[in-house]
Amino acid sequence: MLKLYYAPHTCALATHIALEEAGAKYDTVRMSFKTGDQKKPDYLKINPKARVPSLVTDRGIITETPALLIYVAQTFPAARLAPLDDPYGLAKVQAFNSYLCSTVHVAHAHRMRGARWADEPEAHLAMQRKVPQSVGECFALIEREMFEGPWVMGRDYTVCDGYLYTLTQWLGGDGVDIDRTPKIAEHFRRVGERPAVRKAVEDETRELQSAA
Amino acid sequence: MLKLYYAPHTCALATHIALEEAGAKYDTVRMSFKTGDQKKPDYLKINPKARVPSLVTDRGIITETPALLIYVAQTFPAARLAPLDDPYGLAKVQAFNSYLCSTVHVAHAHRMRGARWADEPEAHLAMQRKVPQSVGECFALIEREMFEGPWVMGRDYTVCDGYLYTLTQWLGGDGVDIDRTPKIAEHFRRVGERPAVRKAVEDETRELQSAA
Repeated sequence: MLKLYYAPHTCALATHIALEEAGAKYDTVRMSFKTGDQKKPDYLKINPKARVPSLVTDRGIITETPALLIYVAQTFPAARLAPLDDPYGLAKVQAFNSYLCSTVHVAHAHRMRGARWADEPEAHLAMQRKVPQSVGECFALIEREMFEGPWVMGRDYTVCDGYLYTLTQWLGGDGVDIDRTPKIAEHFRRVGERPAVRKAVEDETRELQSAA
Repeated sequence: MLKLYYAPHTCALATHIALEEAGAKYDTVRMSFKTGDQKKPDYLKINPKARVPSLVTDRGIITETPALLIYVAQTFPAARLAPLDDPYGLAKVQAFNSYLCSTVHVAHAHRMRGARWADEPEAHLAMQRKVPQSVGECFALIEREMFEGPWVMGRDYTVCDGYLYTLTQWLGGDGVDIDRTPKIAEHFRRVGERPAVRKAVEDETRELQSAA
């Protein structure tokens, strides 16, 4: 059976949502970044990058959200989570996911993970000061140029929607007013009402509470 | 016909190589970052992110290297540039590409593009100081954990190889000694000898010289 390693409040939620949307059977393993689970030797055997998500499959282990989202879509084609047989449509999905992982998530990460890119505490503070602007500009660009509506890609719900939902959750902490991007704000509410999304979010929340 | 917008010395080379490997017919448009071509109004209509690569197709415009690499592989299946019908194999390709775009390229970008993530010049200098370490660690991880050999994914050449080649080119400028990762160093030489790679590199070099 598939096994998803995740940590709460991370981008792993996007894959968690996709697995729920797909109707997949899977187990989850909750990691805590607060106790540094991702850097412990047992986990480094699973993912030497010390990150989440990691998905254990019967063939091996898969990492990186954009890879996992297409893997779930391709493994559960009946759920129609991506236009797999349309190269252009798939490229649009992939371009969106790639923008989220390599630009939006990276902009956000400068609030908490500055040590990846500089050693000096003053530099980390400088990075933190920029986050509201850099993340805000990313979301403004998504709202203006990428979001087709009613779903990210237009008529059909895809893996992009759960991924955007996941990163939209972080806006408050990043100092970005979600109401400056009203289409994304409405999308966030609408995605949050989907049964699969509620299930994934509640699973992660419940496990957090039982661990407390 | 396909039209690739690229700038020399950027990750657009990975898509340029893939198009050559695929035997695609395509035009190229050379952009100069030195004169800020990517921020000019005409180009922002093509790619509002002000980045390269952008590929104009008869359906619309595609951006983001991981999306483009799979698009080229899927559009030219005879070239067998990715295991498209094997969800696990494709996920491994995608995970590698995603690591390059969201971690390796991002680490590298802190040398020249610090203004994306902080305003203060001191913070940019702090970022630059960290690049040899952060990029070096990425390549050490690729060498140790990801590179299967003889190609990135093992027996078959894939789009991952041209993408790794593209980022390996930057190691010298990033202050990383390529010989600390001997498998990647040998791979870089071997990929550089492929006719498709030589053609793409020479096209970009020749256009640079004729523009000088």
